[in-house]
Amino acid sequence: MRREGLAPMSVLSAPTTSASAVSVDLGPASALSCRECGQRYPLGPIFACAECFGPLEIAYDLPTGDPEGLRSRIEAGPASIWRYSELLPVPADVATKPNLNPGWTPLVRADRLAAELGVTGGLWVKDDSGNPTHSFKDRVVANALEAARAFGFTTLSCSSTGNLAGAVGAAAARAGLRSCVFIPHDLEQGKVVMAAVYGGDLVGIEGSYDDVNRFCSELIGDPAGEGWGFVNVNLRPYYAEGSKTLAFEICEQLGWRIPDQLVVPIASGSQLTKIDKGIRELISLGLVEDRPYRIFGAQAEGCSPVSRAFKDGHDVIRPVKPDTIAKSLAIGNPADGPYVLDIARRTGGAVEDVTDAQVVDAIKLLARTEGIFAETAGGVTVGVTRKLIEAGVLDPTLTTVVLNTGDGLKTLDAVAPTTGPTAIIRPDLDAFREAGLV
Amino acid sequence: MRREGLAPMSVLSAPTTSASAVSVDLGPASALSCRECGQRYPLGPIFACAECFGPLEIAYDLPTGDPEGLRSRIEAGPASIWRYSELLPVPADVATKPNLNPGWTPLVRADRLAAELGVTGGLWVKDDSGNPTHSFKDRVVANALEAARAFGFTTLSCSSTGNLAGAVGAAAARAGLRSCVFIPHDLEQGKVVMAAVYGGDLVGIEGSYDDVNRFCSELIGDPAGEGWGFVNVNLRPYYAEGSKTLAFEICEQLGWRIPDQLVVPIASGSQLTKIDKGIRELISLGLVEDRPYRIFGAQAEGCSPVSRAFKDGHDVIRPVKPDTIAKSLAIGNPADGPYVLDIARRTGGAVEDVTDAQVVDAIKLLARTEGIFAETAGGVTVGVTRKLIEAGVLDPTLTTVVLNTGDGLKTLDAVAPTTGPTAIIRPDLDAFREAGLV
Ligand SMILES: [Zn+2]
Ligand SMILES: [Zn+2]
Repeated sequence: MRREGLAPMSVLSAPTTSASAVSVDLGPASALSCRECGQRYPLGPIFACAECFGPLEIAYDLPTGDPEGLRSRIEAGPASIWRYSELLPVPADVATKPNLNPGWTPLVRADRLAAELGVTGGLWVKDDSGNPTHSFKDRVVANALEAARAFGFTTLSCSSTGNLAGAVGAAAARAGLRSCVFIPHDLEQGKVVMAAVYGGDLVGIEGSYDDVNRFCSELIGDPAGEGWGFVNVNLRPYYAEGSKTLAFEICEQLGWRIPDQLVVPIASGSQLTKIDKGIRELISLGLVEDRPYRIFGAQAEGCSPVSRAFKDGHDVIRPVKPDTIAKSLAIGNPADGPYVLDIARRTGGAVEDVTDAQVVDAIKLLARTEGIFAETAGGVTVGVTRKLIEAGVLDPTLTTVVLNTGDGLKTLDAVAPTTGPTAIIRPDLDAFREAGLV
Repeated sequence: MRREGLAPMSVLSAPTTSASAVSVDLGPASALSCRECGQRYPLGPIFACAECFGPLEIAYDLPTGDPEGLRSRIEAGPASIWRYSELLPVPADVATKPNLNPGWTPLVRADRLAAELGVTGGLWVKDDSGNPTHSFKDRVVANALEAARAFGFTTLSCSSTGNLAGAVGAAAARAGLRSCVFIPHDLEQGKVVMAAVYGGDLVGIEGSYDDVNRFCSELIGDPAGEGWGFVNVNLRPYYAEGSKTLAFEICEQLGWRIPDQLVVPIASGSQLTKIDKGIRELISLGLVEDRPYRIFGAQAEGCSPVSRAFKDGHDVIRPVKPDTIAKSLAIGNPADGPYVLDIARRTGGAVEDVTDAQVVDAIKLLARTEGIFAETAGGVTVGVTRKLIEAGVLDPTLTTVVLNTGDGLKTLDAVAPTTGPTAIIRPDLDAFREAGLV
């Protein structure tokens, strides 16, 4: 059931000033704005500009003028992303609604990793494996969920090959919405279980992930998709804002200070783009001091179109066919790639990639030094950090934050072939002594 | 390397008043005390009474006389179990030492689950899957780690078939200690990977879990085990105290109030026993109002020796050979079983068990209603809650807290056979309409 008077707009509908726009309470979010041409649209389930096909993002009326008051309200807020509800497209009472309350994950001081990498300026890992379904996707889905409620959607949906399916299924379950998630039909059983266990509908599509995406785009324009919120399609502007909370938390956890350097994984590039946006919002609100910071993007060599473009000095991303164990980053044609290039260049950062073998090494390095078992995406960021230090690009004397956006339990296959017992022995002390472990 | 003047005592050494005792800083912990005969021992790596072979537990000098001050210090403390450092056997500066900072996990208001179960008095799930290695074991291992540091141990060890191995490996890695963990050699590859990935030594023992335990007991008494802290053997008194933090957090998260009813899983029975101890400490410190509460124990039918004894009215536990999918609860001869019986009877609670099929149903029920994917142990507690309500034993009009102590990602096999796609279709809208999902 939809709220009265609020009809979902078609994907590329013209700007409208209908009554529907004013009935939506998404807190400080005031409109949608085209990132390319600046055209504004009322808040609704649309994601592309009718004028120029550019991506839409949220425009806000942010709480300016009293940074100390805002900071106090944030610090007194819940231990979740909702402490920043005044800076997100969500209603003020969001924390009282049933949702997974993601975020406020640990920022881990990583002294032992720093010692191995030669970092002397202070190194931290932002460990998002602590989220409810153990990836940063809970942040973005929680924001999409509020938009779905505001627009009266009754089914939450997405196309996914992994983390997102579980995040959507869990969020919908908690909220009491239906979910219907689309995956390639030949995923590994473990991923299928994680996507199906929350009891929503799970549809296997006979085809590739590209086929799944194409099918979802058709469904959005079809009566069969009426009342459906696809978190990463027609709710994408709201969804994407969730990544800003990574920047908010990192800066707050550092004592309201921007780190000198951040290393962020690149899939679509949206997360990196929104982290930059989040930092700039904190500056403009007076919550942190304006100081230089560098953002570094990390890819796996087997899917490194942004890294390639950065190194070649291009502004345009040439799509690739992904072939890497870092499947959560395997987007061959990253929509926000050009924005990532802008940010890396503007801030004095860089984009780099590492091989699958380096990803595995980095997962083990992080586990061995800090007791954090990261998903392959975390291996990519740690591996790129190491590579950038060795190349003299990342400055080891500056404060550095590396993101781990997921959980090693979900990508066991990456390390399984090279991770096993030190020894297998009979249960007696002689055998133990012979094994050479004491 | 040990601290000067501090030699580990043998397992059953006589009481000593040597200088070693005073050199140990474990905060409010003042001595070890026999649970059976009351004999006191100085703090050290011992776990059984030399007089009567009873289990030793920690005696404290607790901060009495200023409950409001204590409460304020707790509330201003870190978002981890260390907010309760004044009530744990750890040094005051514990939070500044490298450790995993477990705890302060969500207490989830479970209204949709309550509706399905007919609970009207308020239902919460204490979701410990949010811990760093995704089980409550991080709480107990973090306490054992501090004891290991205090006693100068350089290797952290345990016998394990699952969660504990990963928790010990991760904690040792973060702390910069060596770890050496013993498992049956024929565990599933996933569990082996989780135990090995943190880079410590992992030793597969050719034999059963009982063989592994016997071997570890021999190793503790042997020179080869010098300097080794076995978290669940010679460090057990310290380790076990970590479970009190579940009670502390539940009461604080309810606004410093004891819930009317708690449903707790039983493996060794230590967790349930310590939750009761934790509640009684909060009462004696004046942090919560003294009011009646009932503790219910939950087992799987395939390993239900405590449930059996409770129902038969016995005081003695008859050991069983476990046969259940709830492997993290599969202890056939639970050491703290008699204490569990005492507590269930004294508080007006009960002990109940559910079949493996009911465990699977309960995992799915919790996932479908609250978006929480629980380990089999969580299926046991939710299933027992449902069974006790239906039997009229658990009062649905009272406030009730159910524990989920682990993560469904670690026991995927339990639900995999019955969890899959709703439909598999070609990527077109006609096929989708035919599937009957709209
Ligand atoms: Zn435009
Ligand atoms: Zn005794």
